[in-house]
Amino acid sequence: MADKGLLLVLSGPSGVGKGTVKSAIVENKVFPFEYSVSMTTRKPRPGEVDGQDYFFVSEERFQEAIKNGELLEYNNYVGHYYGTPLAPVKEMLHEGKDVLLEIDVNGAQKVREKMPDGVFIFLTPPDLHTLHLRLEHRGTESEDVIRGRIKQARNEILEMEDYDYAVVNDTVANAVDHIKAIVDAEHVSVKRVIDDYRKMVKED
Amino acid sequence: MADKGLLLVLSGPSGVGKGTVKSAIVENKVFPFEYSVSMTTRKPRPGEVDGQDYFFVSEERFQEAIKNGELLEYNNYVGHYYGTPLAPVKEMLHEGKDVLLEIDVNGAQKVREKMPDGVFIFLTPPDLHTLHLRLEHRGTESEDVIRGRIKQARNEILEMEDYDYAVVNDTVANAVDHIKAIVDAEHVSVKRVIDDYRKMVKED
Repeated sequence: MADKGLLLVLSGPSGVGKGTVKSAIVENKVFPFEYSVSMTTRKPRPGEVDGQDYFFVSEERFQEAIKNGELLEYNNYVGHYYGTPLAPVKEMLHEGKDVLLEIDVNGAQKVREKMPDGVFIFLTPPDLHTLHLRLEHRGTESEDVIRGRIKQARNEILEMEDYDYAVVNDTVANAVDHIKAIVDAEHVSVKRVIDDYRKMVKED
Repeated sequence: MADKGLLLVLSGPSGVGKGTVKSAIVENKVFPFEYSVSMTTRKPRPGEVDGQDYFFVSEERFQEAIKNGELLEYNNYVGHYYGTPLAPVKEMLHEGKDVLLEIDVNGAQKVREKMPDGVFIFLTPPDLHTLHLRLEHRGTESEDVIRGRIKQARNEILEMEDYDYAVVNDTVANAVDHIKAIVDAEHVSVKRVIDDYRKMVKED
């Protein structure tokens, strides 16, 4: 445990702003995070960079990755696959680097099964109304889709129980501050450092 | 849980600097802590104020407090009693205020038995050598006493296992920063906030 990095899993309902918070964390120099780049079969959106925002791959390549066990978790969302390559995550943790994963609640559930020592953060809107407004302002979905999302969010909030922390995304700055505190606290949690201290007492 | 404050228990080996860290927390306006004032039968040292540093009481009054169950924990240390009055702690927590207790490891153990929902922080020196130097510089104890303390500290560090967090007191500023992060993180831990969120989803 001593020389292992922290696996931080940032998840939460669709539309809650996981991507924005992740970007703010990445840009914030206070966080010495490595972050995992997901693999996806969806097409890049304007401005998205291959290997940085995602690894954009063909469906054939993605199926191959699934078959070879190359993915920590994967999901099919609105017809496209999204997955987290396992090898780079394990390597970074082994090197003592903290790794940030930003994934949906299904993905987080799968990561939890494989890596229960991770720190699981549930990002949540101040209330469902805020989620509603955010989804409306996207302007790319019908009311039915929005209603479906809200119903889904209600279920997802109930899933919060499986997480370690619940961070309200009222402002990105506040969310980032809370996440920073969580990372700091986890680094001094006894369950993560006890072996180092046992060694120190023995060596004296 | 929702409208209850956080009970923060700051403990650690003798000489590690618990009192100094507590004072820094109390003086630091960022922390909206209430802090518990202990009761003791020892005489005030120069500069110590009754009702602020301690409640300085007679042995008779202390024994009465024990008998009446007025104390959350108490201890006899070098011939003097030290104890934590229970009523003010419960009242502050009930009012939603965070309470800070600074006590030795025996006291912390007793508090843990009665209030397992507390946040237990073990303050530790960077290594036993540092503890040794600090004790020497006190200049008020013999080498035998110092050796005894170090042996005791070794045992106390092993007690760290029962704590939630281990904060190294390398500098008071660093220790205070870690404690601030811990408090922030604990306030968004799912086990403490889940009931609020369940209510929110139901009320929408």
